[in-house]
Amino acid sequence: MDKSGNAVATAQKHSEQVVYGRNAVVELLQSKPESVEKIYLQFNTAHPKLKEIVITARRLKIPCGKARMEKLTELSGTAKNQGVCALISSVTYYGIEEVLAAPRNTAPLLVVLDGLEDPHNVGAIVRTSEAVAADAVIMIEGKGAPVNATVHKASAGALSHMRVCKVKSLVKCLDLLRERGFQVIASDMDAETNHTDIDWCRPTALVMGAEGSGLGSETRKRCDSVVRIPMAGCVESLNVSVATGVLLYEAMRQRLG
Amino acid sequence: MDKSGNAVATAQKHSEQVVYGRNAVVELLQSKPESVEKIYLQFNTAHPKLKEIVITARRLKIPCGKARMEKLTELSGTAKNQGVCALISSVTYYGIEEVLAAPRNTAPLLVVLDGLEDPHNVGAIVRTSEAVAADAVIMIEGKGAPVNATVHKASAGALSHMRVCKVKSLVKCLDLLRERGFQVIASDMDAETNHTDIDWCRPTALVMGAEGSGLGSETRKRCDSVVRIPMAGCVESLNVSVATGVLLYEAMRQRLG
Repeated sequence: MDKSGNAVATAQKHSEQVVYGRNAVVELLQSKPESVEKIYLQFNTAHPKLKEIVITARRLKIPCGKARMEKLTELSGTAKNQGVCALISSVTYYGIEEVLAAPRNTAPLLVVLDGLEDPHNVGAIVRTSEAVAADAVIMIEGKGAPVNATVHKASAGALSHMRVCKVKSLVKCLDLLRERGFQVIASDMDAETNHTDIDWCRPTALVMGAEGSGLGSETRKRCDSVVRIPMAGCVESLNVSVATGVLLYEAMRQRLG
Repeated sequence: MDKSGNAVATAQKHSEQVVYGRNAVVELLQSKPESVEKIYLQFNTAHPKLKEIVITARRLKIPCGKARMEKLTELSGTAKNQGVCALISSVTYYGIEEVLAAPRNTAPLLVVLDGLEDPHNVGAIVRTSEAVAADAVIMIEGKGAPVNATVHKASAGALSHMRVCKVKSLVKCLDLLRERGFQVIASDMDAETNHTDIDWCRPTALVMGAEGSGLGSETRKRCDSVVRIPMAGCVESLNVSVATGVLLYEAMRQRLG
Protein backbone atom coordinates (compact mmCIF):
# COMPACT_ATOMS: atom_id res chain seq x y z
CA MET A 1 0.00 0.00 0.00
CA ASP A 2 1.09 3.57 -0.59
CA LYS A 3 2.40 5.27 2.50
CA SER A 4 0.98 8.68 1.78
CA GLY A 5 -0.53 9.28 5.22
CA ASN A 6 1.34 12.53 5.75
CA ALA A 7 -0.44 14.19 2.86
CA VAL A 8 -3.78 13.45 4.48
CA ALA A 9 -2.69 14.37 7.98
CA THR A 10 -3.32 18.07 7.58
CA ALA A 11 -6.44 17.70 5.46
CA GLN A 12 -8.76 17.11 8.42
CA LYS A 13 -9.92 20.59 9.40
CA HIS A 14 -11.07 21.21 12.95
CA SER A 15 -13.99 23.54 13.57
CA GLU A 16 -15.60 25.02 16.67
CA GLN A 17 -17.04 22.58 19.16
CA VAL A 18 -20.22 24.19 20.45
CA VAL A 19 -22.96 26.42 19.04
CA TYR A 20 -25.38 27.93 21.59
CA GLY A 21 -28.46 30.14 21.62
CA ARG A 22 -31.89 29.34 20.18
CA ASN A 23 -31.62 31.15 16.86
CA ALA A 24 -28.05 30.03 16.30
CA VAL A 25 -28.97 26.37 16.78
CA VAL A 26 -32.08 26.67 14.54
CA GLU A 27 -29.89 28.26 11.87
CA LEU A 28 -27.26 25.54 12.27
CA LEU A 29 -29.89 22.79 11.87
CA GLN A 30 -31.00 24.42 8.61
CA SER A 31 -27.58 25.13 7.15
CA LYS A 32 -25.28 22.30 8.35
CA PRO A 33 -27.36 19.56 9.97
CA GLU A 34 -24.75 16.92 9.11
CA SER A 35 -22.20 18.63 11.36
CA VAL A 36 -24.35 18.40 14.53
CA GLU A 37 -23.48 15.45 16.78
CA LYS A 38 -25.82 16.15 19.69
CA ILE A 39 -28.07 18.86 21.15
CA TYR A 40 -28.42 19.64 24.86
CA LEU A 41 -31.54 21.43 26.10
CA GLN A 42 -32.30 22.87 29.52
CA PHE A 43 -34.65 20.91 31.79
CA ASN A 44 -38.19 22.22 32.27
CA THR A 45 -38.43 24.87 29.60
CA ALA A 46 -41.33 25.31 27.24
CA HIS A 47 -40.01 27.99 24.92
CA PRO A 48 -41.59 27.39 21.46
CA LYS A 49 -38.23 27.72 19.71
CA LEU A 50 -36.75 24.97 21.90
CA LYS A 51 -39.68 22.73 20.98
CA GLU A 52 -39.05 23.52 17.32
CA ILE A 53 -35.40 22.52 17.80
CA VAL A 54 -36.40 19.19 19.37
CA ILE A 55 -38.84 18.41 16.52
CA THR A 56 -36.28 19.31 13.84
CA ALA A 57 -33.54 17.31 15.56
CA ARG A 58 -35.77 14.23 15.81
CA ARG A 59 -36.59 14.49 12.12
CA LEU A 60 -32.86 14.70 11.33
CA LYS A 61 -32.12 11.83 13.77
CA ILE A 62 -29.79 14.02 15.82
CA PRO A 63 -29.73 12.89 19.46
CA CYS A 64 -31.13 15.37 22.04
CA GLY A 65 -30.37 15.33 25.76
CA LYS A 66 -31.69 17.26 28.75
CA ALA A 67 -29.12 19.13 30.83
CA ARG A 68 -28.94 21.36 33.90
CA MET A 69 -28.18 25.05 33.35
CA GLU A 70 -24.76 24.52 34.99
CA LYS A 71 -23.84 21.97 32.32
CA LEU A 72 -25.04 24.24 29.50
CA THR A 73 -22.99 27.11 30.95
CA GLU A 74 -19.95 24.86 31.15
CA LEU A 75 -20.42 23.61 27.57
CA SER A 76 -20.99 27.04 26.05
CA GLY A 77 -18.69 29.01 28.33
CA THR A 78 -21.47 31.51 29.06
CA ALA A 79 -24.70 31.71 31.05
CA LYS A 80 -26.33 33.44 28.08
CA ASN A 81 -26.90 30.22 26.13
CA GLN A 82 -30.73 30.49 26.15
CA GLY A 83 -31.04 26.90 27.31
CA VAL A 84 -29.59 25.17 24.26
CA CYS A 85 -26.18 23.99 23.05
CA ALA A 86 -25.32 22.00 19.92
CA LEU A 87 -22.13 19.96 19.83
CA ILE A 88 -20.43 20.21 16.48
CA SER A 89 -18.43 17.41 14.96
CA SER A 90 -14.76 18.24 14.69
CA VAL A 91 -14.58 15.98 11.66
CA THR A 92 -14.92 17.45 8.20
CA TYR A 93 -16.62 14.85 6.10
CA TYR A 94 -15.41 14.13 2.60
CA GLY A 95 -17.59 13.35 -0.41
CA ILE A 96 -17.19 9.95 -2.05
CA GLU A 97 -16.26 11.67 -5.32
CA GLU A 98 -13.53 13.62 -3.52
CA VAL A 99 -12.05 10.37 -2.19
CA LEU A 100 -12.29 8.58 -5.55
CA ALA A 101 -10.66 11.55 -7.31
CA ALA A 102 -7.57 11.39 -5.04
CA PRO A 103 -7.04 7.78 -3.94
CA ARG A 104 -4.16 6.87 -1.61
CA ASN A 105 -3.77 3.41 -3.14
CA THR A 106 -3.45 2.29 -6.75
CA ALA A 107 -6.19 -0.20 -5.95
CA PRO A 108 -8.24 1.78 -3.43
CA LEU A 109 -9.50 0.18 -0.24
CA LEU A 110 -12.67 1.54 1.42
CA VAL A 111 -14.19 0.50 4.73
CA VAL A 112 -17.98 0.93 4.87
CA LEU A 113 -19.68 0.86 8.28
CA ASP A 114 -23.37 -0.05 8.10
CA GLY A 115 -24.65 1.54 11.30
CA LEU A 116 -22.19 0.37 13.98
CA GLU A 117 -23.54 1.44 17.36
CA ASP A 118 -20.54 1.22 19.68
CA PRO A 119 -18.21 4.24 19.45
CA HIS A 120 -15.30 2.10 20.78
CA ASN A 121 -15.74 -0.23 17.82
CA VAL A 122 -16.02 2.67 15.36
CA GLY A 123 -12.87 4.25 16.83
CA ALA A 124 -10.89 1.01 16.77
CA ILE A 125 -11.95 0.43 13.12
CA VAL A 126 -10.87 3.95 12.11
CA ARG A 127 -7.53 3.24 13.82
CA THR A 128 -7.03 -0.05 11.97
CA SER A 129 -8.20 1.49 8.66
CA GLU A 130 -5.60 4.22 9.05
CA ALA A 131 -2.95 1.64 9.94
CA VAL A 132 -3.49 -0.23 6.65
CA ALA A 133 -3.65 3.10 4.75
CA ALA A 134 -7.23 2.57 3.63
CA ASP A 135 -8.55 5.37 1.42
CA ALA A 136 -11.59 6.25 3.52
CA VAL A 137 -14.09 5.08 6.09
CA ILE A 138 -17.67 5.50 4.88
CA MET A 139 -20.58 5.82 7.31
CA ILE A 140 -24.33 6.15 6.81
CA GLU A 141 -25.99 9.44 7.78
CA GLY A 142 -28.26 9.20 10.83
CA LYS A 143 -27.35 5.55 11.44
CA GLY A 144 -25.01 4.19 14.09
CA ALA A 145 -22.76 5.97 16.58
CA PRO A 146 -22.11 9.69 16.11
CA VAL A 147 -18.46 10.53 15.48
CA ASN A 148 -17.95 11.89 18.99
CA ALA A 149 -15.14 12.28 21.53
CA THR A 150 -15.28 8.55 22.39
CA VAL A 151 -14.67 7.64 18.74
CA HIS A 152 -11.80 10.14 18.62
CA LYS A 153 -10.22 8.64 21.74
CA ALA A 154 -10.74 5.01 20.68
CA SER A 155 -9.16 5.83 17.31
CA ALA A 156 -5.97 6.90 19.16
CA GLY A 157 -5.74 10.00 16.99
CA ALA A 158 -6.29 8.14 13.71
CA LEU A 159 -9.52 10.06 13.08
CA SER A 160 -7.42 13.15 12.36
CA HIS A 161 -5.55 11.31 9.60
CA MET A 162 -8.41 9.34 8.08
CA ARG A 163 -10.83 10.56 5.48
CA VAL A 164 -14.39 9.94 6.65
CA CYS A 165 -17.40 10.11 4.30
CA LYS A 166 -21.06 10.19 5.29
CA VAL A 167 -23.51 8.93 2.68
CA LYS A 168 -27.29 9.17 2.72
CA SER A 169 -27.90 5.75 1.19
CA LEU A 170 -25.69 2.68 1.56
CA VAL A 171 -27.33 1.02 -1.45
CA LYS A 172 -26.67 3.99 -3.76
CA CYS A 173 -23.12 4.23 -2.45
CA LEU A 174 -22.42 0.56 -3.21
CA ASP A 175 -24.02 0.89 -6.67
CA LEU A 176 -21.76 3.86 -7.41
CA LEU A 177 -18.66 2.02 -6.19
CA ARG A 178 -19.46 -1.03 -8.33
CA GLU A 179 -19.91 1.23 -11.36
CA ARG A 180 -16.43 2.56 -10.64
CA GLY A 181 -14.92 -0.91 -10.69
CA PHE A 182 -14.88 -1.73 -6.98
CA GLN A 183 -15.59 -5.22 -5.73
CA VAL A 184 -17.92 -5.12 -2.73
CA ILE A 185 -17.02 -7.60 0.02
CA ALA A 186 -18.92 -8.32 3.20
CA SER A 187 -18.40 -10.79 6.00
CA ASP A 188 -20.95 -13.28 7.26
CA MET A 189 -20.54 -16.38 9.40
CA ASP A 190 -22.77 -18.41 7.03
CA ALA A 191 -20.65 -17.66 3.95
CA GLU A 192 -18.82 -20.52 2.24
CA THR A 193 -15.66 -18.76 1.09
CA ASN A 194 -12.89 -18.13 3.62
CA HIS A 195 -11.63 -14.56 3.78
CA THR A 196 -8.19 -15.75 2.74
CA ASP A 197 -9.52 -17.30 -0.49
CA ILE A 198 -10.49 -14.13 -2.33
CA ASP A 199 -8.37 -11.55 -4.13
CA TRP A 200 -8.03 -8.42 -1.99
CA CYS A 201 -5.64 -6.72 -4.44
CA ARG A 202 -8.46 -5.30 -6.59
CA PRO A 203 -10.17 -1.98 -5.74
CA THR A 204 -12.25 -3.08 -2.75
CA ALA A 205 -15.08 -1.80 -0.57
CA LEU A 206 -15.36 -3.85 2.62
CA VAL A 207 -18.82 -3.54 4.23
CA MET A 208 -19.06 -4.26 7.96
CA GLY A 209 -22.57 -4.87 9.35
CA ALA A 210 -23.74 -3.53 12.71
CA GLU A 211 -23.15 -5.46 15.94
CA GLY A 212 -25.92 -8.00 16.31
CA SER A 213 -28.03 -7.23 13.23
CA GLY A 214 -25.34 -8.03 10.65
CA LEU A 215 -25.73 -7.81 6.90
CA GLY A 216 -28.95 -6.41 5.33
CA SER A 217 -30.50 -8.16 2.31
CA GLU A 218 -30.15 -5.13 0.00
CA THR A 219 -26.46 -4.93 0.93
CA ARG A 220 -25.97 -8.65 0.38
CA LYS A 221 -27.41 -8.37 -3.18
CA ARG A 222 -24.70 -5.85 -4.01
CA CYS A 223 -21.80 -7.96 -2.73
CA ASP A 224 -19.37 -9.54 -5.17
CA SER A 225 -18.17 -11.84 -2.39
CA VAL A 226 -19.44 -12.67 1.06
CA VAL A 227 -16.65 -14.24 3.10
CA ARG A 228 -16.38 -16.01 6.41
CA ILE A 229 -13.65 -15.72 8.97
CA PRO A 230 -13.00 -19.34 10.02
CA MET A 231 -14.32 -20.10 13.53
CA ALA A 232 -12.82 -23.20 15.16
CA GLY A 233 -14.41 -22.92 18.61
CA CYS A 234 -17.85 -22.49 20.14
CA VAL A 235 -18.45 -18.75 19.67
CA GLU A 236 -20.19 -17.78 16.44
CA SER A 237 -18.57 -14.47 15.69
CA LEU A 238 -15.81 -12.05 16.60
CA ASN A 239 -16.08 -8.54 17.97
CA VAL A 240 -16.72 -6.37 14.88
CA SER A 241 -13.56 -4.29 15.31
CA VAL A 242 -11.46 -7.47 15.65
CA ALA A 243 -13.18 -8.97 12.57
CA THR A 244 -12.46 -5.79 10.59
CA GLY A 245 -8.82 -5.98 11.67
CA VAL A 246 -8.52 -9.62 10.57
CA LEU A 247 -10.02 -8.79 7.14
CA LEU A 248 -8.04 -5.59 6.54
CA TYR A 249 -4.78 -7.31 7.47
CA GLU A 250 -5.54 -10.15 5.07
CA ALA A 251 -5.90 -7.44 2.40
CA MET A 252 -2.61 -5.90 3.59
CA ARG A 253 -0.85 -9.30 3.54
CA GLN A 254 -1.93 -9.98 -0.03
CA ARG A 255 -1.11 -6.46 -1.20
CA LEU A 256 2.35 -6.46 0.42
CA GLY A 257 3.22 -9.97 -0.74
CA MET B 1 -6.81 -26.54 14.48
CA ASP B 2 -8.71 -29.20 16.33
CA LYS B 3 -12.36 -28.37 16.78
CA SER B 4 -12.74 -29.85 20.23
CA GLY B 5 -14.46 -26.85 21.81
CA ASN B 6 -17.43 -28.88 22.97
CA ALA B 7 -15.32 -30.96 25.30
CA VAL B 8 -14.19 -27.83 27.10
CA ALA B 9 -17.62 -26.20 27.14
CA THR B 10 -18.78 -27.94 30.29
CA ALA B 11 -15.45 -27.85 32.08
CA GLN B 12 -15.86 -24.29 33.33
CA LYS B 13 -17.56 -24.66 36.71
CA HIS B 14 -19.62 -21.80 38.09
CA SER B 15 -19.52 -21.09 41.81
CA GLU B 16 -21.44 -18.75 44.10
CA GLN B 17 -21.10 -15.06 43.41
CA VAL B 18 -20.94 -13.37 46.81
CA VAL B 19 -19.50 -14.18 50.25
CA TYR B 20 -20.55 -11.87 53.10
CA GLY B 21 -19.90 -11.46 56.81
CA ARG B 22 -16.61 -10.50 58.47
CA ASN B 23 -15.39 -13.95 59.46
CA ALA B 24 -16.51 -15.52 56.21
CA VAL B 25 -14.56 -12.98 54.16
CA VAL B 26 -11.44 -13.30 56.37
CA GLU B 27 -11.65 -17.07 55.94
CA LEU B 28 -12.09 -16.72 52.18
CA LEU B 29 -9.03 -14.46 51.91
CA GLN B 30 -7.00 -17.12 53.72
CA SER B 31 -8.28 -20.15 51.85
CA LYS B 32 -9.04 -19.03 48.30
CA PRO B 33 -7.64 -15.52 47.75
CA GLU B 34 -7.27 -16.13 44.00
CA SER B 35 -11.04 -16.47 43.63
CA VAL B 36 -11.84 -13.01 45.04
CA GLU B 37 -12.44 -10.34 42.39
CA LYS B 38 -13.42 -7.43 44.64
CA ILE B 39 -14.43 -6.58 48.20
CA TYR B 40 -17.10 -4.06 49.17
CA LEU B 41 -17.01 -2.52 52.67
CA GLN B 42 -19.56 -0.32 54.38
CA PHE B 43 -18.85 3.43 54.62
CA ASN B 44 -17.79 4.84 58.00
CA THR B 45 -17.10 1.72 59.99
CA ALA B 46 -14.07 1.14 62.17
CA HIS B 47 -14.53 -2.50 63.16
CA PRO B 48 -11.03 -4.02 63.59
CA LYS B 49 -11.92 -7.06 61.50
CA LEU B 50 -12.92 -4.82 58.59
CA LYS B 51 -9.57 -3.04 58.88
CA GLU B 52 -7.84 -6.43 58.86
CA ILE B 53 -9.76 -7.32 55.68
CA VAL B 54 -8.66 -4.11 53.97
CA ILE B 55 -5.01 -4.68 54.91
CA THR B 56 -5.06 -8.30 53.74
CA ALA B 57 -6.83 -7.37 50.49
CA ARG B 58 -4.26 -4.66 49.75
CA ARG B 59 -1.44 -7.11 50.31
CA LEU B 60 -3.12 -9.57 47.93
CA LYS B 61 -3.81 -6.75 45.42
CA ILE B 62 -7.55 -7.39 45.56
CA PRO B 63 -9.51 -4.18 44.85
CA CYS B 64 -11.63 -2.81 47.73
CA GLY B 65 -14.54 -0.40 47.37
CA LYS B 66 -16.72 1.51 49.82
CA ALA B 67 -20.47 0.95 49.57
CA ARG B 68 -23.70 2.06 51.22
CA MET B 69 -25.51 -0.46 53.41
CA GLU B 70 -28.30 -0.62 50.79
CA LYS B 71 -25.81 -1.80 48.18
CA LEU B 72 -24.33 -4.41 50.52
CA THR B 73 -27.83 -5.69 51.33
CA GLU B 74 -28.61 -5.90 47.63
CA LEU B 75 -25.34 -7.71 46.87
CA SER B 76 -25.63 -10.23 49.71
CA GLY B 77 -29.41 -10.58 49.71
CA THR B 78 -29.52 -9.92 53.47
CA ALA B 79 -29.12 -7.02 55.88
CA LYS B 80 -27.01 -9.27 58.11
CA ASN B 81 -23.86 -8.89 56.03
CA GLN B 82 -21.81 -7.20 58.81
CA GLY B 83 -20.71 -4.46 56.43
CA VAL B 84 -18.65 -6.58 54.02
CA CYS B 85 -19.21 -8.53 50.80
CA ALA B 86 -16.65 -10.29 48.62
CA LEU B 87 -17.41 -10.89 44.95
CA ILE B 88 -16.23 -14.28 43.83
CA SER B 89 -15.01 -15.00 40.35
CA SER B 90 -17.30 -17.31 38.44
CA VAL B 91 -14.28 -18.56 36.51
CA THR B 92 -12.44 -21.66 37.69
CA TYR B 93 -8.83 -21.12 36.83
CA TYR B 94 -6.78 -23.95 35.37
CA GLY B 95 -3.17 -24.73 36.16
CA ILE B 96 -0.64 -24.52 33.33
CA GLU B 97 0.22 -28.19 33.87
CA GLU B 98 -3.45 -29.12 33.51
CA VAL B 99 -3.62 -27.30 30.17
CA LEU B 100 -0.35 -28.79 28.91
CA ALA B 101 -1.50 -32.29 29.93
CA ALA B 102 -4.66 -32.05 27.78
CA PRO B 103 -3.97 -29.78 24.82
CA ARG B 104 -6.73 -29.02 22.28
CA ASN B 105 -4.24 -28.68 19.41
CA THR B 106 -1.44 -30.96 18.26
CA ALA B 107 0.76 -27.86 18.31
CA PRO B 108 -0.76 -25.97 21.23
CA LEU B 109 -1.46 -22.25 21.01
CA LEU B 110 -1.47 -20.15 24.20
CA VAL B 111 -2.36 -16.48 24.58
CA VAL B 112 -0.55 -14.75 27.47
CA LEU B 113 -1.89 -11.38 28.68
CA ASP B 114 0.73 -9.31 30.50
CA GLY B 115 -1.51 -7.09 32.64
CA LEU B 116 -4.11 -5.77 30.19
CA GLU B 117 -6.17 -3.13 32.01
CA ASP B 118 -9.30 -2.76 29.89
CA PRO B 119 -11.89 -5.49 30.53
CA HIS B 120 -13.38 -4.90 27.05
CA ASN B 121 -10.01 -5.76 25.52
CA VAL B 122 -9.58 -8.81 27.76
CA GLY B 123 -13.10 -10.01 26.85
CA ALA B 124 -12.59 -9.46 23.12
CA ILE B 125 -9.27 -11.35 23.28
CA VAL B 126 -10.87 -14.29 25.12
CA ARG B 127 -13.55 -14.31 22.39
CA THR B 128 -10.98 -14.35 19.57
CA SER B 129 -8.83 -16.94 21.38
CA GLU B 130 -11.85 -19.22 21.65
CA ALA B 131 -12.69 -18.61 17.99
CA VAL B 132 -9.26 -19.87 16.88
CA ALA B 133 -9.49 -22.78 19.37
CA ALA B 134 -6.47 -21.63 21.37
CA ASP B 135 -5.60 -23.95 24.24
CA ALA B 136 -5.77 -21.36 27.02
CA VAL B 137 -5.55 -17.71 27.92
CA ILE B 138 -2.93 -17.08 30.62
CA MET B 139 -3.11 -14.04 32.91
CA ILE B 140 -0.83 -12.74 35.67
CA GLU B 141 -2.16 -12.80 39.24
CA GLY B 142 -2.85 -9.35 40.70
CA LYS B 143 -2.01 -7.60 37.42
CA GLY B 144 -4.47 -6.14 34.93
CA ALA B 145 -8.26 -6.23 34.79
CA PRO B 146 -10.09 -8.67 37.08
CA VAL B 147 -12.10 -11.28 35.20
CA ASN B 148 -15.41 -9.60 35.96
CA ALA B 149 -18.87 -9.27 34.44
CA THR B 150 -17.59 -6.80 31.82
CA VAL B 151 -15.02 -9.33 30.62
CA HIS B 152 -17.74 -12.00 30.51
CA LYS B 153 -20.01 -9.75 28.45
CA ALA B 154 -17.26 -8.56 26.09
CA SER B 155 -16.25 -12.19 25.52
CA ALA B 156 -19.79 -12.89 24.20
CA GLY B 157 -19.94 -16.07 26.26
CA ALA B 158 -16.52 -17.33 25.16
CA LEU B 159 -15.22 -17.14 28.73
CA SER B 160 -17.39 -20.17 29.56
CA HIS B 161 -15.67 -22.22 26.85
CA MET B 162 -12.12 -21.01 27.29
CA ARG B 163 -9.58 -22.34 29.74
CA VAL B 164 -8.09 -19.47 31.73
CA CYS B 165 -4.92 -19.84 33.82
CA LYS B 166 -3.57 -17.37 36.37
CA VAL B 167 0.15 -17.50 37.02
CA LYS B 168 2.12 -15.77 39.75
CA SER B 169 5.14 -14.96 37.60
CA LEU B 170 5.13 -14.30 33.86
CA VAL B 171 8.88 -14.92 33.65
CA LYS B 172 8.66 -18.36 35.31
CA CYS B 173 5.67 -19.23 33.14
CA LEU B 174 7.57 -18.37 29.94
CA ASP B 175 10.64 -20.29 31.14
CA LEU B 176 8.46 -23.35 31.76
CA LEU B 177 6.80 -23.06 28.36
CA ARG B 178 10.16 -22.80 26.59
CA GLU B 179 11.36 -25.90 28.46
CA ARG B 180 8.29 -27.68 27.11
CA GLY B 181 9.16 -26.81 23.53
CA PHE B 182 7.03 -23.70 23.02
CA GLN B 183 8.27 -20.78 20.97
CA VAL B 184 7.47 -17.49 22.72
CA ILE B 185 6.30 -14.73 20.39
CA ALA B 186 5.55 -11.11 21.24
CA SER B 187 4.56 -8.14 19.16
CA ASP B 188 6.32 -4.79 19.09
CA MET B 189 6.16 -1.95 16.60
CA ASP B 190 9.96 -1.65 16.54
CA ALA B 191 10.50 -5.29 15.56
CA GLU B 192 12.03 -6.07 12.17
CA THR B 193 10.20 -9.28 11.30
CA ASN B 194 6.65 -9.06 9.96
CA HIS B 195 4.12 -11.24 11.75
CA THR B 196 3.49 -13.11 8.49
CA ASP B 197 7.16 -14.10 8.16
CA ILE B 198 7.40 -16.50 11.10
CA ASP B 199 6.22 -20.07 11.49
CA TRP B 200 3.06 -20.16 13.62
CA CYS B 201 2.57 -23.93 13.19
CA ARG B 202 4.90 -24.82 16.08
CA PRO B 203 3.68 -24.94 19.70
CA THR B 204 3.35 -21.21 20.39
CA ALA B 205 2.83 -18.86 23.31
CA LEU B 206 1.81 -15.40 22.11
CA VAL B 207 2.50 -12.69 24.73
CA MET B 208 0.45 -9.49 24.48
CA GLY B 209 1.76 -6.49 26.45
CA ALA B 210 -0.51 -4.08 28.33
CA GLU B 211 -2.10 -1.08 26.61
CA GLY B 212 0.44 1.75 26.64
CA SER B 213 3.31 0.12 28.52
CA GLY B 214 3.95 -2.68 26.01
CA LEU B 215 6.60 -5.36 26.34
CA GLY B 216 8.78 -5.60 29.49
CA SER B 217 12.53 -6.25 29.15
CA GLU B 218 12.43 -9.57 31.07
CA THR B 219 9.65 -10.75 28.75
CA ARG B 220 11.55 -9.64 25.66
CA LYS B 221 14.61 -11.68 26.74
CA ARG B 222 12.46 -14.81 26.72
CA CYS B 223 10.99 -14.28 23.25
CA ASP B 224 12.06 -16.49 20.37
CA SER B 225 10.62 -13.93 17.97
CA VAL B 226 9.38 -10.37 18.32
CA VAL B 227 7.21 -9.48 15.35
CA ARG B 228 5.69 -6.32 13.98
CA ILE B 229 2.29 -5.89 12.42
CA PRO B 230 2.95 -3.71 9.36
CA MET B 231 1.69 -0.15 9.79
CA ALA B 232 1.24 1.80 6.57
CA GLY B 233 -0.34 4.98 7.95
CA CYS B 234 0.34 7.55 10.65
CA VAL B 235 -0.81 5.72 13.78
CA GLU B 236 1.87 3.73 15.58
CA SER B 237 -0.13 0.82 16.89
CA LEU B 238 -3.45 -0.99 16.82
CA ASN B 239 -5.92 -1.53 19.63
CA VAL B 240 -4.52 -4.52 21.57
CA SER B 241 -7.57 -6.72 20.97
CA VAL B 242 -7.44 -5.97 17.23
CA ALA B 243 -3.68 -6.70 17.18
CA THR B 244 -4.26 -10.02 18.97
CA GLY B 245 -6.93 -10.88 16.40
CA VAL B 246 -4.61 -10.11 13.50
CA LEU B 247 -1.84 -12.29 15.01
CA LEU B 248 -4.07 -15.22 16.00
CA TYR B 249 -5.68 -15.29 12.56
CA GLU B 250 -2.27 -15.33 10.90
CA ALA B 251 -1.57 -18.41 13.07
CA MET B 252 -4.95 -19.86 12.01
CA ARG B 253 -4.26 -19.13 8.31
CA GLN B 254 -0.90 -20.90 8.43
CA ARG B 255 -2.28 -23.83 10.43
CA LEU B 256 -5.29 -24.32 8.14
CA GLY B 257 -3.33 -23.89 4.91
